[in-house]
Amino acid sequence: MNDHLSPRLDFWFELASTYSYPAAMRIMPLAHAAGVVVRWRPFLLGPLFKAQGWNDSPFNLFPAKGTYMWRDLERICAGLNLPFRRPESFPQNSLPATRVALVGLDAGWGEDFVRAVYRAEFADGRQIGDAAVIAGVLEELGHEAEAIFARAQSSDVKERVRANTAEARALGIFGAPSFLVGGELFWGNDRLEQALDRAKAGFGRR
Amino acid sequence: MNDHLSPRLDFWFELASTYSYPAAMRIMPLAHAAGVVVRWRPFLLGPLFKAQGWNDSPFNLFPAKGTYMWRDLERICAGLNLPFRRPESFPQNSLPATRVALVGLDAGWGEDFVRAVYRAEFADGRQIGDAAVIAGVLEELGHEAEAIFARAQSSDVKERVRANTAEARALGIFGAPSFLVGGELFWGNDRLEQALDRAKAGFGRR
Repeated sequence: MNDHLSPRLDFWFELASTYSYPAAMRIMPLAHAAGVVVRWRPFLLGPLFKAQGWNDSPFNLFPAKGTYMWRDLERICAGLNLPFRRPESFPQNSLPATRVALVGLDAGWGEDFVRAVYRAEFADGRQIGDAAVIAGVLEELGHEAEAIFARAQSSDVKERVRANTAEARALGIFGAPSFLVGGELFWGNDRLEQALDRAKAGFGRR
Repeated sequence: MNDHLSPRLDFWFELASTYSYPAAMRIMPLAHAAGVVVRWRPFLLGPLFKAQGWNDSPFNLFPAKGTYMWRDLERICAGLNLPFRRPESFPQNSLPATRVALVGLDAGWGEDFVRAVYRAEFADGRQIGDAAVIAGVLEELGHEAEAIFARAQSSDVKERVRANTAEARALGIFGAPSFLVGGELFWGNDRLEQALDRAKAGFGRR
């Protein structure tokens, strides 16, 4: 497959987002089968929520919606044979892990790292805002946490998290996961197949 | 099919709800094929939104979400070959039509009426809060609007709209369409197939 000519899809995800977990686990085998190249784009939902007056996740602000989401996610994970355990706190502070993810995506191990973070958070009940947890994830993947943390704290990486988040907002993104294909936005784990179909049909080529 | 022994699904819909339109158009052929009996349950979203501090539809309060919804609905309708035209005003006043729907569901023509209301609203760009539009829909279906309006204005019917809405809220419903199968809630047009599968698997029997 020549990546340059392949259809493309931008996968916008947030490491604290529940529905981003099954999407991150599903996307690569499906994209590979469809011949679609995926660009992983981490961003933060918090600033987008704040901009519309929310100081917490809508799943906490609107309890009926939250109760439903946890049950729905449990059903989705069961259907995919993905381990799931509701974390004790939600949403978690995803900023440090998001910075590390950007370092990893540059270096080629970012996708594995992101999947491992989601497993820690939604399968193992760990706190991804805790540096020791992230260090543990990195070490399990065979990386030296200290050097990576130093790089993740650079002003360049910090600025890229802000820039990604601003770009997400400018693209009309309001939740995660979102998929962007040739200017067409698809929101939610449920829309992954539709977004890949669209990319396959040629709308994601550039 | 013996209705008494068939699996069952409650279809909770709101006549002003955009995603309830494709759900109302799709549900009966799919339910018939699955051998599932559907109970149509109209309710009002307005009081549920007000209870969580919203005085308008979230699609208006949160513009990025609204922009996305209209495009998403357009794509869904195109995929189903359903006519779609974005109405000039949204959300529309669905209370009068909801009362008529309850009269019709008692009398056996309610499902046809509901589908015709959705077509008027989301395919023809008409105002369903306008009594003349509802009278026109009733007359196209061969009913005498005047007698039906009188019945729809009875305190019994008014109270049933309130009771349905209170029941929806007590069930944890926060949006439309919603499907309830043996105590299990499914939210959104996207979840119709999953809800029917659940009913077929025996969870909706009672």
